[in-house]
Amino acid sequence: MFFTVKTSEEVLEILRDFDPAGAETIQISNALNRVLSNAVAAEEDMPNFSRSSMDGYAVRAKDTFGASDSLPAFLELAGEVVMGRAPTDVVTPGTAIRISTGGMIPDGADAVVMIEYCHSVDEKTIEVSRTVAPMENVIGKGDDFQKGAVIFQKSAVLRPQDIGVLAGLGIQKIPVYKKPKVAIISTGDEVIPIDQKPEPGQVRDINSYTLSAFCSQAGAVPVNMGLCKDDFDKMRETVGIAIETCDTVWISGGSSVGSRDMTVKVLESFAGMQLLVHGIAVSPGKPTIIARIGNKALFGLPGHVAAAMIVAEIFLDPFLARLSGEERTSGDHHQYVQAELERNIESASGRDDYIRVKLNRRDGRIFAEPIFGKSGLISTLVEAHGLVKIDRNTEGLYKGQTVPVMLFKPFK
Amino acid sequence: MFFTVKTSEEVLEILRDFDPAGAETIQISNALNRVLSNAVAAEEDMPNFSRSSMDGYAVRAKDTFGASDSLPAFLELAGEVVMGRAPTDVVTPGTAIRISTGGMIPDGADAVVMIEYCHSVDEKTIEVSRTVAPMENVIGKGDDFQKGAVIFQKSAVLRPQDIGVLAGLGIQKIPVYKKPKVAIISTGDEVIPIDQKPEPGQVRDINSYTLSAFCSQAGAVPVNMGLCKDDFDKMRETVGIAIETCDTVWISGGSSVGSRDMTVKVLESFAGMQLLVHGIAVSPGKPTIIARIGNKALFGLPGHVAAAMIVAEIFLDPFLARLSGEERTSGDHHQYVQAELERNIESASGRDDYIRVKLNRRDGRIFAEPIFGKSGLISTLVEAHGLVKIDRNTEGLYKGQTVPVMLFKPFK
Repeated sequence: MFFTVKTSEEVLEILRDFDPAGAETIQISNALNRVLSNAVAAEEDMPNFSRSSMDGYAVRAKDTFGASDSLPAFLELAGEVVMGRAPTDVVTPGTAIRISTGGMIPDGADAVVMIEYCHSVDEKTIEVSRTVAPMENVIGKGDDFQKGAVIFQKSAVLRPQDIGVLAGLGIQKIPVYKKPKVAIISTGDEVIPIDQKPEPGQVRDINSYTLSAFCSQAGAVPVNMGLCKDDFDKMRETVGIAIETCDTVWISGGSSVGSRDMTVKVLESFAGMQLLVHGIAVSPGKPTIIARIGNKALFGLPGHVAAAMIVAEIFLDPFLARLSGEERTSGDHHQYVQAELERNIESASGRDDYIRVKLNRRDGRIFAEPIFGKSGLISTLVEAHGLVKIDRNTEGLYKGQTVPVMLFKPFK
Repeated sequence: MFFTVKTSEEVLEILRDFDPAGAETIQISNALNRVLSNAVAAEEDMPNFSRSSMDGYAVRAKDTFGASDSLPAFLELAGEVVMGRAPTDVVTPGTAIRISTGGMIPDGADAVVMIEYCHSVDEKTIEVSRTVAPMENVIGKGDDFQKGAVIFQKSAVLRPQDIGVLAGLGIQKIPVYKKPKVAIISTGDEVIPIDQKPEPGQVRDINSYTLSAFCSQAGAVPVNMGLCKDDFDKMRETVGIAIETCDTVWISGGSSVGSRDMTVKVLESFAGMQLLVHGIAVSPGKPTIIARIGNKALFGLPGHVAAAMIVAEIFLDPFLARLSGEERTSGDHHQYVQAELERNIESASGRDDYIRVKLNRRDGRIFAEPIFGKSGLISTLVEAHGLVKIDRNTEGLYKGQTVPVMLFKPFK
């Protein structure tokens, strides 16, 4: 089979063709950042009774018409609304009832005069020095949401205030997309667990930890499948379990050609597996493999953590959003800052280059300093705040040019 | 005691005077977004041996000097580096050893020629058509980090790649600031648990759910202390337990003056409690109370969830960052977008106004549409994407003006 290298846009398009990982019902107290798998409607009016939005007096608006400092209206005090209870008194013409913010508007009243504009004349009388309009300082029954109204559309991502509104409506459980489960497999004969002391030639497993944290950051659930030597049978067994138990499979490393070939052979050994991408026109990250079986995407990621991480930022982040049920138009929810380049950056045409940059602030301006040096260094990724993209049709960027910097998360 | 209303800047300054909530040691697999309470240094070199960054042949660079397509250098094949093992062979003058990406550089070699520039002549000989410089395609021992070097400073917020580097160095546990524990108390005689059906005049507990989710979003741990009626003894008991068990106490509502007075009375009843703020020059959010006992800040938040939420965005977000040990210069880690105002907005001077806005995208431009209507409506907060600030020295903003919009989180 022959594969050409795909462009970023082609790869992103391919990844949009996967469906969300399924739905479940959860308590709203666990629903922060979750994505609704169905629209949610109000099952009652919100608020469920007319409420005062101020401390003051519930009145008939027309009894205050024309009232002013020089010519106040005099109203008879006809009781007080107790918080949390239906009023027992009624506002009749010429009367007023004391009410607090959030209190239920008594029958007969259609407005509230703020306490600042009312003065006690005697125990039974107040003077009102301001005219109020009907419904002034009143939140009417159903003003927020009417019974049956759709409050949130399918695919809404829930924020703190959204959860508050669900609580207010008494909606305790909601339908959401499942968090995607990501099988993470680290391969390579040279890779050992992090609690072991490496012998010469061995390195600890950086990728599993980096990619697991990346998944958590994106709201997915990393499932660490452990280390896998460059052994066909062992790798095939591990990938098989991963396909059974998870929504997507990420195989990282090994970094050598032989190890990459092994990943392809293992993927091809599964019946029904389609190899969709064998190489992406990006740097770093070129030797990325994407295969599909059913609705599950399998990724062969570069062995070097810096390349794997950049592939994750560019392709896996929108892919996880897609599996999570998000429907974002851009597919990119990175934060960007505009910064002035501190140096020229050359770039080979024919591929999108992602350059690690460090942000420096001077004189109220933000500068992006390209981090050069060997691409194999992991420290460059720690030093960097984000990435500057050089499009494959561009030969480079110039010192002084203002460019958008895609920020690594969290950026603080 | 007499309190003047404080400005936003004064309140933020007051909140910077609290210390982080304490430190603990955790596993790196749980360390995403956590803040280091001490600097972390490398306990060994990274990498711990010289590695190849390419697939190719380990050579003595000087053996390739002058080599080109037309005049290749001929080298004798002296073995192969097995991944994960120390090489058993040595590169002597005129010889080369096969090596994969990540393989350990054999003794005698000081460079790697990429496989693309090498051709097999016979079983024991290769021809090399390119000159390599010393250390070319080699990551030297300690090139990333040398033993003893500080990798992360105190107060660093850990990202996926940072956790990866810790894994690579075999650092399994790290010292971090504790996540602040936030006691959340909802008050008001009218407030009932969300699983109950409200009688007329009663409302469900919106604030606990909103503020708990807000805490989680900020990386803090919400501790729901339950509902509290407007009863001095009950509230004092609840606040007492909250002070004992949590790092900060957030009392929200009731919305009426009487209920707010009760909160102040309860706070003043604790020996050593200082009332620091009684009113902030912001709208919404003016009736906010801040008190201090030891290193613990107690907040009396507005009863209305929209006002409480806006106070949380402006003041509690940087406060939680401070308790979490972050040392951000701006104290603000909101994401902003620039948007064109769709309408004029008037503002009273003497206070900072925060206007809820909805973002609309048209023709590649972003517009901010102020959400007017009654401030008591909760639906405005659901409809809004963020806030536009009108400084207290400004009388308003004009239609067409470009303004920064502080985005609610998550913004997707």
